[in-house]
Amino acid sequence: MTSKITGVGKYIPEETITNLFFNQHVFLSEDGAQLKDDNASITEKLKKITGIEERRYAGSHQVTSDLGLIAAQDAIEDSGIDPETLDYIIFAHNFGDVRFGTIQSDAVPSLAARVKHMLKIKNNFCVAYDMLFGCPGWIEGMIQAHAFIKSGMAKRCLVIGAETLSRVVDVHDRDSMIYADGAGAVILERNDKDDSGIKSHLSASYTLNEKDFLHFGKSYNTESCPDTKYIKMDGRKIYEFALLRVPEAMKKCFDNSGYDISRLNKIIIHQANEKMDEAIVNRFYQLYEMPVPDNIMPMVIHKLGNSSVATIPTLLSMILKGELDTHDIREGDVVLFASVGAGMNINAVVYQF
Amino acid sequence: MTSKITGVGKYIPEETITNLFFNQHVFLSEDGAQLKDDNASITEKLKKITGIEERRYAGSHQVTSDLGLIAAQDAIEDSGIDPETLDYIIFAHNFGDVRFGTIQSDAVPSLAARVKHMLKIKNNFCVAYDMLFGCPGWIEGMIQAHAFIKSGMAKRCLVIGAETLSRVVDVHDRDSMIYADGAGAVILERNDKDDSGIKSHLSASYTLNEKDFLHFGKSYNTESCPDTKYIKMDGRKIYEFALLRVPEAMKKCFDNSGYDISRLNKIIIHQANEKMDEAIVNRFYQLYEMPVPDNIMPMVIHKLGNSSVATIPTLLSMILKGELDTHDIREGDVVLFASVGAGMNINAVVYQF
Repeated sequence: MTSKITGVGKYIPEETITNLFFNQHVFLSEDGAQLKDDNASITEKLKKITGIEERRYAGSHQVTSDLGLIAAQDAIEDSGIDPETLDYIIFAHNFGDVRFGTIQSDAVPSLAARVKHMLKIKNNFCVAYDMLFGCPGWIEGMIQAHAFIKSGMAKRCLVIGAETLSRVVDVHDRDSMIYADGAGAVILERNDKDDSGIKSHLSASYTLNEKDFLHFGKSYNTESCPDTKYIKMDGRKIYEFALLRVPEAMKKCFDNSGYDISRLNKIIIHQANEKMDEAIVNRFYQLYEMPVPDNIMPMVIHKLGNSSVATIPTLLSMILKGELDTHDIREGDVVLFASVGAGMNINAVVYQF
Repeated sequence: MTSKITGVGKYIPEETITNLFFNQHVFLSEDGAQLKDDNASITEKLKKITGIEERRYAGSHQVTSDLGLIAAQDAIEDSGIDPETLDYIIFAHNFGDVRFGTIQSDAVPSLAARVKHMLKIKNNFCVAYDMLFGCPGWIEGMIQAHAFIKSGMAKRCLVIGAETLSRVVDVHDRDSMIYADGAGAVILERNDKDDSGIKSHLSASYTLNEKDFLHFGKSYNTESCPDTKYIKMDGRKIYEFALLRVPEAMKKCFDNSGYDISRLNKIIIHQANEKMDEAIVNRFYQLYEMPVPDNIMPMVIHKLGNSSVATIPTLLSMILKGELDTHDIREGDVVLFASVGAGMNINAVVYQF
């Protein structure tokens, strides 16, 4: 018995935000001093490191659960299932619904309950809950769905990852240019027919020294209300942490799958930062003492930015639906999913298509 | 194999809020008109229905994760386990950490990660995540822990329920008198030695027509900022819904356990409203065509109010530690846990001690 993906979906918000959008922003350092470089240089440097040229923002009428709904509908349509047969709706996010122009998170009722309502599902035994695990939340939701399937509690789950990071950015922080909005979703089902599906998984929470590498903190503008918090990250510490811990976690997970490394066809990694992701994959292959194979890691961060929990299911959906020219996944392919984010949490899944 | 409770803990905040606290509040109806009754009458009526004479509020220096930490430490001490051996920390809440005097929820990093950090746990494979499921969140966390144990993903889990509802109340809404702060926690472990533990469980999400019975909404004071939201409930609709749906869910769960109804020793139900809880238990026994047994349902709402996810683990901890004069649980006793809340979600667990 395995747990198999039978449908994938995504929602890429329509509003494209180019780097020009940030031209008039006043970027400050952590201590409130204005950065010396001009905005064009700051943006260019950010693009060099992260790869981000554009990102998408949700429309002002939308909230995170609306984005999640569209991705869910897309995944349901792709799978062909009757949504009434879902046993679980698991919604991974970190900030709830934050309406445009406001600062409060709203997750009562849960975003999963909102999606279930909007899907008009009548089956009361379809359990709808939200899960918070930083950027790795969507992979963790998949692992939880797999636990329900493995334990006999569920046969069919909808796992959504959606976020509107544009609603929690400090406009005075150059890191604000990294964050994006988006949603992805997958139908995961019990599979007794063949051996495709989840082959191994790993989850870890590094909290002893790493708890605040990503956190909700004050604006860099010292005149801003100190009670209003924004997403904040210590980029350097995250980079060093990720480079040290993610490759070893990926290797541990991959080795648990029983496959030889030569069988690995694709690495779908959280679209956090292009240079970081490349460095992680380099080190991963170093652990196997082999060069990085060509075309192993698809990247869509250039056009979509970092939409937290949404990056991986969005990317997976694009590949499986043939929307990326340079990457495909075929039957039998072995794919390694991996993510890192607030907690600091790391997780990975080895999946055979 | 079952999942067994090996430690219980709670934290009851020190600040006692009597009904006199609300004497000077200006209570309004939903349309902003001042209520005709004086506050003494309003409070007396509330007490008659809900049973609430007092509730506890967290200190202004505390946030929800602080409350959860103390309950977790209490449960760990009670169980005698080494916290480094925990496979999961599951933290059920609905509003994150809301600091005193502010309106923003903060759950980045997750509250589970904060607790794990404060517990100084070094084991990185202890997975810390938050779960949002309305008031039934703590029971749902227990069911998820059970799924991890059953599927072989975990042997030992810490399940915390904590909330500071005092931070999200509309002072112009008389329902604000119902809400309280608190925390409870349990260690749940794989048990291969005997047949005590979780015998059956049930979860349901009623979202088609019930999604907004409990929600985050505007103040009844029409002059308040419309963007600031508070916990709001439609008491009448919730009462009718709960009376219709909770007894049948409890019966379905109890029947799944295989026990005869005569074996049931105790019903530990979410402390939402005394009259509602009594009506639910009455109807539950009506479904078995028998009278309600004496002393079946402990209530601590009189002194503790409704602390959402925290009521059930708090009450369980009080009983197991002999802090309630009128109720105890002995080895072999069969207990039915049940909860209802925002979603609208309902769940139940049958447990043999």
